[in-house]
Amino acid sequence: MDVKVRALYEALFALEDVRQVLRETTPDHTLTEQQRTVVLKALERVREALTVLEEWRSGDAPPIQSAPGIVARSVEEEYVSVQPIQRGGVLPPEARKTLTAYCDGYSVCDYCLPPFRLDRIRRPNLMEFHRELAEFLGMDEARLFPGARRCFQAVMSSLVKPGDTVLVDSLSHYTVYLAAEQAGARVVEVPNTGYPEYRVDPEAYGEKADEVERETGKPPVLAVLSHVDYKVGNLHDAKRVSETLKDRGIPLLLNCAYTAGVMPVDGRELGADFLAASGHKSFASPAPSGILAVREEWADRVFRESRFREGKEVELLGCTLMGGVAVAMMASLPHVKERVGRWAEEVEKARWLVSELEKIGRSKQLGVKPKQHTLICMEFPDFHEVSKKHKRRGYFLYEELRRRGVFGLQPGLTRRVKLNTYGLSWRQVRHVAEAFKDVAEKYGIPVS
Amino acid sequence: MDVKVRALYEALFALEDVRQVLRETTPDHTLTEQQRTVVLKALERVREALTVLEEWRSGDAPPIQSAPGIVARSVEEEYVSVQPIQRGGVLPPEARKTLTAYCDGYSVCDYCLPPFRLDRIRRPNLMEFHRELAEFLGMDEARLFPGARRCFQAVMSSLVKPGDTVLVDSLSHYTVYLAAEQAGARVVEVPNTGYPEYRVDPEAYGEKADEVERETGKPPVLAVLSHVDYKVGNLHDAKRVSETLKDRGIPLLLNCAYTAGVMPVDGRELGADFLAASGHKSFASPAPSGILAVREEWADRVFRESRFREGKEVELLGCTLMGGVAVAMMASLPHVKERVGRWAEEVEKARWLVSELEKIGRSKQLGVKPKQHTLICMEFPDFHEVSKKHKRRGYFLYEELRRRGVFGLQPGLTRRVKLNTYGLSWRQVRHVAEAFKDVAEKYGIPVS
Repeated sequence: MDVKVRALYEALFALEDVRQVLRETTPDHTLTEQQRTVVLKALERVREALTVLEEWRSGDAPPIQSAPGIVARSVEEEYVSVQPIQRGGVLPPEARKTLTAYCDGYSVCDYCLPPFRLDRIRRPNLMEFHRELAEFLGMDEARLFPGARRCFQAVMSSLVKPGDTVLVDSLSHYTVYLAAEQAGARVVEVPNTGYPEYRVDPEAYGEKADEVERETGKPPVLAVLSHVDYKVGNLHDAKRVSETLKDRGIPLLLNCAYTAGVMPVDGRELGADFLAASGHKSFASPAPSGILAVREEWADRVFRESRFREGKEVELLGCTLMGGVAVAMMASLPHVKERVGRWAEEVEKARWLVSELEKIGRSKQLGVKPKQHTLICMEFPDFHEVSKKHKRRGYFLYEELRRRGVFGLQPGLTRRVKLNTYGLSWRQVRHVAEAFKDVAEKYGIPVS
Repeated sequence: MDVKVRALYEALFALEDVRQVLRETTPDHTLTEQQRTVVLKALERVREALTVLEEWRSGDAPPIQSAPGIVARSVEEEYVSVQPIQRGGVLPPEARKTLTAYCDGYSVCDYCLPPFRLDRIRRPNLMEFHRELAEFLGMDEARLFPGARRCFQAVMSSLVKPGDTVLVDSLSHYTVYLAAEQAGARVVEVPNTGYPEYRVDPEAYGEKADEVERETGKPPVLAVLSHVDYKVGNLHDAKRVSETLKDRGIPLLLNCAYTAGVMPVDGRELGADFLAASGHKSFASPAPSGILAVREEWADRVFRESRFREGKEVELLGCTLMGGVAVAMMASLPHVKERVGRWAEEVEKARWLVSELEKIGRSKQLGVKPKQHTLICMEFPDFHEVSKKHKRRGYFLYEELRRRGVFGLQPGLTRRVKLNTYGLSWRQVRHVAEAFKDVAEKYGIPVS
């Protein structure tokens, strides 16, 4: 662990020890001698750490634990992380501060008044936050959920009866299948063009829907489209898919786990009936968090109230995200709104990295070219050849990159490698390109 | 806001600004002039805050925001909080430190390897944590969920077909009803004795089950019991309920949202088939978090794997708690294990407070006496009388107590008031008693 990162954690952790004394001594904060000693020793540790940071010292230090047996995570503080699923879920400072301030279990419930609902709390103003979310996504109503997958579940549970058919694109995330399975749906896949482009033809949604109706006598009750898929990071044409479906009266659930929160998404313009977003994947939020936004005409069905308890929404099981996660999402929203305006430059960085990585031997980017998203899937036949003879096998690439300050490849993989440049600076993206090329050269792979 | 609490937050927040520079300058941490200025100014703010803390200054300061429009929460740092649902979900320092270190979205997924499951991750060691949880609860297998309500949902969804009957105690939390409703269950309530004791007769479970079988031709498929109910905090006799049900072959879902994590709970001894626990309510964890623990014979059914994706569990929708919430729970487990051993003293404090509060006019504790749990429901006819003539109406009690450093009553309520002493020191519990008595005296209510 870098000595400065360790010092930072030492200071933060020592301050939590001081905070504990503040908590134990409420309401008047009178200290016992023992507590005074704890405070002064903790503050002394902070001062020592500050000196390391002021001098901006370099060098290695032993890792620090946040609790017995738990090493404090320092991926974001020490590496350029290109982890494919993590880039959009990195917290900005205001969200980290808010998570710290609202850490305890039911922290947003201090001023929960009738009708006792998360989306009606005004201190902190989660009510306004819900309204802003719907507007930001170009939808009519929004609710928080513990992850996009729980949004899929709520929509499927509301619309699907056992035996009904749900259309999904064949690049769908596994959680779409699981949510369908839980609801007892029959899942029919809309094909893609396969290697190397993996395109989904919007017209194929119409054709599959007609085929289902011919075969079962009933059209699909719901269609799901990955706005951007997890496999190769293609941006699929939601607008054309929704038009095809509208002709047939089939509602569209748009899975925006990779898009809403990192790039501009307007559900109304795209024709989404339901829009599912992920907080931890693309909304700069802690896990588990997600947003389900719906069009007005579906709100009564998906957000229907309980027969048993007035005001409580069945699919939400009442409240959904009771604490720091919800309010940290709220703290991130201004950051998220600002960053989606910089999307063009994010894509430019991704394209530039692809062009650099394609200089390595016979490598090529999979999926549609040029990239429309920062999630990249590369094919590296030459790294794969190296792995066959390397004593660390496929792990060599992960390890070589990590030694060069680049983190986030799936350990063991070399032939197909996914990475994501979202939110990295140009300097950091250039560092990633150099690291890959440096590894290639070390193993005699030509770099053009 | 207390000047020390503000200083603490200033220091923590300034360190997050330094952390941001560390993140933006990976991997070599070379600073631009501008970044150097940001770091030095932030460190200067920390030093100033340290001085306030070293001198342990007293006095008021303006509240601090963790993000624009979000005031940092300071309930735990400034008040003695008796909020009925929050006491068991307050984080110990090691969980707060861990949440800080694992704040980002997918923070526990850095070393997720095949089969790509939360309960198999070894860095941090969530795999071992899952094993420990099952053992700690006296059950065979455990999984994390986003809240106890999501555990109810998983069990109901696995066991209940539309039209099946589920027995619930008539003091059940509303989320039990919602989970049953989502599964399409018919809900039948086992009665309680009502005011003032609200006892549930274990034999009534058997009688209701027989009644359901006579009326519908089919016994209930599941019974739910609140181990401790939210209404008056009675500890219900789970063992006798489970025995009654076992005679009839009906499985028991024990709702331990108020018990597991604060008091000793052994699911095997109590005869639970399924045990649901809440992280944010009783496991010293951030929200949303919960634990579903099951007996071996039910594991294949409730944790069944997907037809579509090998290894992924349908009811979990794959992974459940991807980030800081999961690892903060893990950080809290040693604290939780230790504190359940001190349960007898926690109950003693609750009983003592009841005895003091019952000295106020005609007040009395509702529910079974003496208390077996720290969740207390008091009836205050005299405060209620005052509220009728007070210009602040029912809010006067909340406000008077808050002025005396006691937080957590439902604003507006005076006649029936819930509070919880869990985790407070004797000094703090005495402070609560004095505050109530002081308010009573101010309004001329006799205190014996």
